[in-house]
Amino acid sequence: MLEDKNIHKTSLEQIGEFGLIDILTQGFPLRNPSSLKGIGDDGAVIDFAHEKAVISTDLLIEGVHFNLSYMPLKHLGYKAVMVNLSDIYAMNAIATQITVSIAVSNRFPLEALEELYEGIRLACDIYKVDLVGGDTTSSLRGLIISVTSIGKAPLEKIVYRNGAKENDLIVVSGDLGSAYMGLQVLERENEVFKVNPNLQPDLEPYQYLIERQLKPEARKDIVLLLEKLGVKPTSMMDISDGLSSELLHICKQSQVGCRLMEEKIPLDPVLINACEEFNLSSTMVALSGGEDYELLFTISQADYDKIKGNPNLSVIGYITDASQGCNLITRANEAIPLEARGWNAFR
Amino acid sequence: MLEDKNIHKTSLEQIGEFGLIDILTQGFPLRNPSSLKGIGDDGAVIDFAHEKAVISTDLLIEGVHFNLSYMPLKHLGYKAVMVNLSDIYAMNAIATQITVSIAVSNRFPLEALEELYEGIRLACDIYKVDLVGGDTTSSLRGLIISVTSIGKAPLEKIVYRNGAKENDLIVVSGDLGSAYMGLQVLERENEVFKVNPNLQPDLEPYQYLIERQLKPEARKDIVLLLEKLGVKPTSMMDISDGLSSELLHICKQSQVGCRLMEEKIPLDPVLINACEEFNLSSTMVALSGGEDYELLFTISQADYDKIKGNPNLSVIGYITDASQGCNLITRANEAIPLEARGWNAFR
Repeated sequence: MLEDKNIHKTSLEQIGEFGLIDILTQGFPLRNPSSLKGIGDDGAVIDFAHEKAVISTDLLIEGVHFNLSYMPLKHLGYKAVMVNLSDIYAMNAIATQITVSIAVSNRFPLEALEELYEGIRLACDIYKVDLVGGDTTSSLRGLIISVTSIGKAPLEKIVYRNGAKENDLIVVSGDLGSAYMGLQVLERENEVFKVNPNLQPDLEPYQYLIERQLKPEARKDIVLLLEKLGVKPTSMMDISDGLSSELLHICKQSQVGCRLMEEKIPLDPVLINACEEFNLSSTMVALSGGEDYELLFTISQADYDKIKGNPNLSVIGYITDASQGCNLITRANEAIPLEARGWNAFR
Repeated sequence: MLEDKNIHKTSLEQIGEFGLIDILTQGFPLRNPSSLKGIGDDGAVIDFAHEKAVISTDLLIEGVHFNLSYMPLKHLGYKAVMVNLSDIYAMNAIATQITVSIAVSNRFPLEALEELYEGIRLACDIYKVDLVGGDTTSSLRGLIISVTSIGKAPLEKIVYRNGAKENDLIVVSGDLGSAYMGLQVLERENEVFKVNPNLQPDLEPYQYLIERQLKPEARKDIVLLLEKLGVKPTSMMDISDGLSSELLHICKQSQVGCRLMEEKIPLDPVLINACEEFNLSSTMVALSGGEDYELLFTISQADYDKIKGNPNLSVIGYITDASQGCNLITRANEAIPLEARGWNAFR
């Protein structure tokens, strides 16, 4: 990706750490009144007033979490922020600040990092969060990004993973599995490219899947929608590892069981086509493919009328007593125990 | 370090990411009433009540920031927390929470990470901070640690870097340069060890220096002391890159100059001896050696009587008008412009 471009390259050695910080953090105004002090001191200062603070952090490693041969740096910057904001929204809170730390090897010129920060800046603009701090250092190999996001909410609005109750409905936003299939498409094309760099793949039919992989959006809109609808979920989390694994987390922490209806899992038609082409079960992809960053939550049955028919939300099952276990109810009406087949960093 | 020990090793693959998190985060009770929700959800929840939140973050990379051939993992865990808490104290705030993210390659067995977390736990115990979150993932190479620390202070107590005024006194806690010389000693012994692993070096004379390098303490005690003395610094930061570089930061951000008196810089006798042995100028080591994590601050002259004679604090110079520049006044009474020769990650 980097090597393809015939642009001017400025070495990081030339500008030094403080010069780099100055350049990269240009164009990050503080928008939130709660951001009392941003970059430039030992710490940032934040005023949460009468609200509670919500904090989450993620570490992204080149070669483990992303591959720069098909991940443009601007998208990577955007996605690194999305992944993190998603955790704040999953608490039913609103993200207000982030810190971004990066470690880079010398192979990255300044221009590459500016591209990365362009994506970070775009994310801050759209989601109205302030970059208030970070660390910039060198790595022996590859790019490392650590993002911490900070949000706020009144205590009574915050939703944990452990509040699901028997008979609650299981709801998911958007559709599932597409980010995973986007990755499959990109990896296939990357293999083809390695064999013959002159082949120009036609990625048009897979555009939706690729966008879901390269430029996911955190569902701030769902948090706002739920507030507007007057619905407070009983439990909530974001789907980063796959529906199956996340639903098991909710059930374990809430000490309940669940029945997940296969036929209700929202799938995009593009995903269904790609699964056929790749000879994969679309249900399996939706259950175990990660990185959708949709919100998975449970609501009381009394709230059903408030969300009914909303195109952003799908009811995909219901919560049972713990003794009934966690099951997928297939189209053939068979109950299969749910398994956590999500991403495991150490496998 | 790791390879020397004949201990049972459990592969991370065996226990998986969630198993690892469960094991590592045992024994981290929440002590601060402000920690409403710690590990185990999408985010931690913190109640800052009427106080402001202070946030800081650092990224530590094996081979760049630490060398495991002479840095025991327990010390590394402790130091990683200290480095970060130091930034919170440098804001005149009290640290209350941390998040710790780690990325490790497969060469680390569980037992190594448990050692690391033992140091983190010790730091949390002594400094009364709560571990409330983090991320655990794999790396292609080496160990990566990202710590975010969170603290609190009433707005009127927070001290920035930009408040130094003409005629203010420049004060530093503890003594300087020892952490840097500790590193020199360790690196020399490491070279000797590579040549002949059977040589047992006598590190006894350098114990103070090595301890300053391997097990630094963040100066929470100074923040408490200043409060007790009724002194609010006009500016403050911690010394991570070296006195010279940090003092220049304060002067630049405060738009002032300074006169730093060479004879007043606090040096430990062990440091002076080691500098002679290594043929290094102890003043240069104090000015440019980093990692002391002492606090550098300025106070109004009116506060001088309150700190006078305190063994933890040394007045090392005073603030001037910006037009006079930033100078070191040598023992020979010469004025030499201060230069930032601190650590640059990209050199």
